[in-house]
Amino acid sequence: MYRSHNCGELNASNINTEVTLAGWVQKSRDKGFMNWVDLRDRYGITQLIFDESRTDKTVFELAKTLGREFVIQVKGTVIEREAKNKNIPTGEIEILVSELNILNAALTPPFTIEDETDGGEDIRMKYRYLDIRRNPVKNSLLFRHKVAMEVRKYLSDLDFCEVETPYLIKSTPEGARDFVVPSRMNEGQFYALPQSPQTFKQLLMVGGMDKYFQIVKCFRDEDLRADRQPEFTQIDCEMAFVEQEDILNVFEGLTRHLLKEIKGIEVDKFPRITYDYAMKTYGNDKPDIRFGMEFGELNEFAQHKDFPVFNTAELVVGIAVPGAGNYTRKEIDGLIDWVKRPQVGASGMVYAKCNDDGTFKSSVDKFYDQDDLGQWAKITGAKPGDMIFVLSGPANKTRAQLSALRMELATRLGLRNPAEFAPLWVVDFPLLELDEDSGRYHAMHHPFTSPKPEDMQLLETEPGKVRANAYDMVLNGNEIGGGSIRIHDKATQQLMFKYLGFTEEEAKAQFGFLMDAFQFGAPPHGGLAFGLDRLVAILGGQETIRDFIAFPKNNSGRDVMIDAPATIDDAQLKELHIKVAIQ
Amino acid sequence: MYRSHNCGELNASNINTEVTLAGWVQKSRDKGFMNWVDLRDRYGITQLIFDESRTDKTVFELAKTLGREFVIQVKGTVIEREAKNKNIPTGEIEILVSELNILNAALTPPFTIEDETDGGEDIRMKYRYLDIRRNPVKNSLLFRHKVAMEVRKYLSDLDFCEVETPYLIKSTPEGARDFVVPSRMNEGQFYALPQSPQTFKQLLMVGGMDKYFQIVKCFRDEDLRADRQPEFTQIDCEMAFVEQEDILNVFEGLTRHLLKEIKGIEVDKFPRITYDYAMKTYGNDKPDIRFGMEFGELNEFAQHKDFPVFNTAELVVGIAVPGAGNYTRKEIDGLIDWVKRPQVGASGMVYAKCNDDGTFKSSVDKFYDQDDLGQWAKITGAKPGDMIFVLSGPANKTRAQLSALRMELATRLGLRNPAEFAPLWVVDFPLLELDEDSGRYHAMHHPFTSPKPEDMQLLETEPGKVRANAYDMVLNGNEIGGGSIRIHDKATQQLMFKYLGFTEEEAKAQFGFLMDAFQFGAPPHGGLAFGLDRLVAILGGQETIRDFIAFPKNNSGRDVMIDAPATIDDAQLKELHIKVAIQ
Repeated sequence: MYRSHNCGELNASNINTEVTLAGWVQKSRDKGFMNWVDLRDRYGITQLIFDESRTDKTVFELAKTLGREFVIQVKGTVIEREAKNKNIPTGEIEILVSELNILNAALTPPFTIEDETDGGEDIRMKYRYLDIRRNPVKNSLLFRHKVAMEVRKYLSDLDFCEVETPYLIKSTPEGARDFVVPSRMNEGQFYALPQSPQTFKQLLMVGGMDKYFQIVKCFRDEDLRADRQPEFTQIDCEMAFVEQEDILNVFEGLTRHLLKEIKGIEVDKFPRITYDYAMKTYGNDKPDIRFGMEFGELNEFAQHKDFPVFNTAELVVGIAVPGAGNYTRKEIDGLIDWVKRPQVGASGMVYAKCNDDGTFKSSVDKFYDQDDLGQWAKITGAKPGDMIFVLSGPANKTRAQLSALRMELATRLGLRNPAEFAPLWVVDFPLLELDEDSGRYHAMHHPFTSPKPEDMQLLETEPGKVRANAYDMVLNGNEIGGGSIRIHDKATQQLMFKYLGFTEEEAKAQFGFLMDAFQFGAPPHGGLAFGLDRLVAILGGQETIRDFIAFPKNNSGRDVMIDAPATIDDAQLKELHIKVAIQ
Repeated sequence: MYRSHNCGELNASNINTEVTLAGWVQKSRDKGFMNWVDLRDRYGITQLIFDESRTDKTVFELAKTLGREFVIQVKGTVIEREAKNKNIPTGEIEILVSELNILNAALTPPFTIEDETDGGEDIRMKYRYLDIRRNPVKNSLLFRHKVAMEVRKYLSDLDFCEVETPYLIKSTPEGARDFVVPSRMNEGQFYALPQSPQTFKQLLMVGGMDKYFQIVKCFRDEDLRADRQPEFTQIDCEMAFVEQEDILNVFEGLTRHLLKEIKGIEVDKFPRITYDYAMKTYGNDKPDIRFGMEFGELNEFAQHKDFPVFNTAELVVGIAVPGAGNYTRKEIDGLIDWVKRPQVGASGMVYAKCNDDGTFKSSVDKFYDQDDLGQWAKITGAKPGDMIFVLSGPANKTRAQLSALRMELATRLGLRNPAEFAPLWVVDFPLLELDEDSGRYHAMHHPFTSPKPEDMQLLETEPGKVRANAYDMVLNGNEIGGGSIRIHDKATQQLMFKYLGFTEEEAKAQFGFLMDAFQFGAPPHGGLAFGLDRLVAILGGQETIRDFIAFPKNNSGRDVMIDAPATIDDAQLKELHIKVAIQ
């Protein structure tokens, strides 16, 4: 038995108890005749005291040799501390040590094991096992566990069955790039790692499992943008005999449960807005609704004068920024530069200050009178003291630009409070989106998503207008989950593959098993998937997912700690019937 | 809303309720004026009645068109059944149908969706989604979910934290063959899929996570013996600041909890036997102790006469088979043939009947008198009415042969009752085992296992005698879990790699990160892993794991349902910097 207690649980009620503790030396303060050591483990910190007058001489001297991160075991008596620390649960006591056993020495760590460390990202990743000792990372991993447990309990209590689907499956060129795995036993053939268990969960519905979930790793071999990982975790769910409403209710319930159990926050019924409304109102299909600044479309009140920039624009659209009426000329110019950066791409920006006396002062006073500007204020909801910013141009691009500005201003104004949670559903996504490069339509969600029956007749004529029974859950400006009602009959699925440009042979080769399955009594079904990494980070009040992943990869897909990927030897390659072919 | 109730919940208390149900047509019995349909879903079966005199004519006629496995929705009234079925929860009622909606037609399934199906293994695998509709498979998957939930709850309540370790890691040629994944972003380099999260869980201990678990997929590219899968699931666990005793207690507690919660069975403290004892007593390191037939070593009482077969043997060893004294000559000859089969490999077998009057009749009466045979009986524990079977030869081989016979006889005698559970620990495994082909020693568990400190000095002189702090949990003749106390200092780990034949460079290239980690304050730690597939199958009273895996692969590692692995296209290969090279 290495310890009788952990380092987080002793308090005044344990005074005079003989205890054995084990852990890491967080720090030691040597005052000559007295030596205090902070002993740390996952559960907390307990202060040890070595006292020249009360501690055995050998032990006292040995304690002086302890360095940071040494692993030690001590026996001693719990005593009352003279200088109490009210900030930690063990702050009323300390351990007068009688025996000290160094279990393992430690080199000086390459960065400090403190909440605020001096180590940069790269060194922390290389020594991730040391980084995990730090509270921010350790607590993130414990938090993730707690969220995953709550998800499992909630869904299991609702009769969802967690089913493990296979990791060694078949490559399907549709969608993102697959990671593949050469088969030794099947020459020249490859498995693929799943981008999601999509087809398997649908087959489970055909198989009558009724309610499925799985917390499961998924894999996408994509060029990694910041904060993306080649392997990531989904809460994957599917239900049979349901309509969209049933699914929204179940997973709204789950999310509400998590917010309550994990964060102690009660939220109302989630707002539901359509994709079209989201795009018009926030320029974005994952709007952050913790704050307002909703878009006001100004074409009617901006295209009747001689301002050519607006008159030739497809869309003139503005937002009212609360309390920004007192921005200086320099601040405004800074924002204009910000929207003109290539990442945003606006060609300019018009502004109108809403003075406290109800008058307006704009950058386009030459073209617009107070009545016009009053209309702008009315439409954008601007109040005295606010500032209206207006962008114009092609509708989609302009909306995206104004959305970027809206988010940036909210951040600057402190309106994106990580302790506040504003979930919503975005529904009625388009079924298809136009790929501007190829001129072809792609499935916006995936090729198994059901079109709305009432829009089916538009498939031939106006495919871009067909809406899907597809929905996203959005939390604080992040899509945390999305799903759809699926196609469950072979004819519609075949039609969909046709519209997506599959030949009959391709469709059959890749998804024949699914279409076959639909012929043997497939129930109506649908589902969704949450991104667990993102969900946990947001619930944890963080912007980046990396600290919520024990061993993340860097932007080149490398694990710098174990140095993977790596070369493999020729015998392995030969067994796998492949050769390396570097161009 | 597709249904108001599921097909397993309506009973007499619901009579006169209007309900909506949805599900699959299990069967229909058309009596002309009356038509009964069994409607099935995951939760049960509810009988529907269509009655010429009470049902709308259109509905009545439509019902006659329903085939097996059609997916339908019905509305109707719960009424009392005339002929009640006490065997099912819904057996007191039926639904008088007023509306019938065919949600999806179905082709006739290629095998019957019944508990006892007419479908062979191959066809059931090809149409696994139909196989899952059958109770035995469906219930196995639900059972697996229940076991996994209980494991998670139990460990989580003990402060274990589930941490997801990465799937894209580095290939290490030691151990079984890795599946590898070519990296697109890192030319000529490969990830490997983990054979287990071994090094990561040890790093989590170095990182202070203290108690880790994970239910996790693992991968081994091995030639598949019956009932092995290339991807399988482990309950993987690790603890810091523990000795072997702590680990045995925790996971004995978990297993006892599972037996109680899942099976309603209370078991005593698990017996603990050493590897040496297990091999001497059962010829096997995973003994089935639901029954006796323990080995009796007979050298002393078999090598003092003129029977050359025994006199020249390293080991003479027997078992007493309860109640087998009345076996006919034919039965005995059959068993002798059985042990002489190449799979067992004995060269012959001696037997001695224990007559009811206390005398003996043996196949070697020429050499052994009644006193000798009395000693055999005493040592094997044979009683009047039993049969003693004796094998001889090289010790290890003979033990293995007698172990095979013991298991075969237990099966024939009905002593392997799947409803009985006899867990035990086997401890003190050898650290190393001799590979007879190469003449080299391999790690019996893995190269991270700690030798017993008191045996360390034997490493140079008698490596085969060094015992490890390694242990297996055995249940009903199956190893369901195994683990060890790990090495946690760099020097010992280096020494171990040296003894295992690694050069310093190889050790550093493959496990340098782990040895580095040990220098930064590694705590003593150890753990174990359970095979979830096997554990669930045994708890479920089954011999094979396949029905407890939703989508298993066949013995060639193929998923015959989705037809994977498969070829991939040249563009994919090129992006991955590899070529197919079939010899």
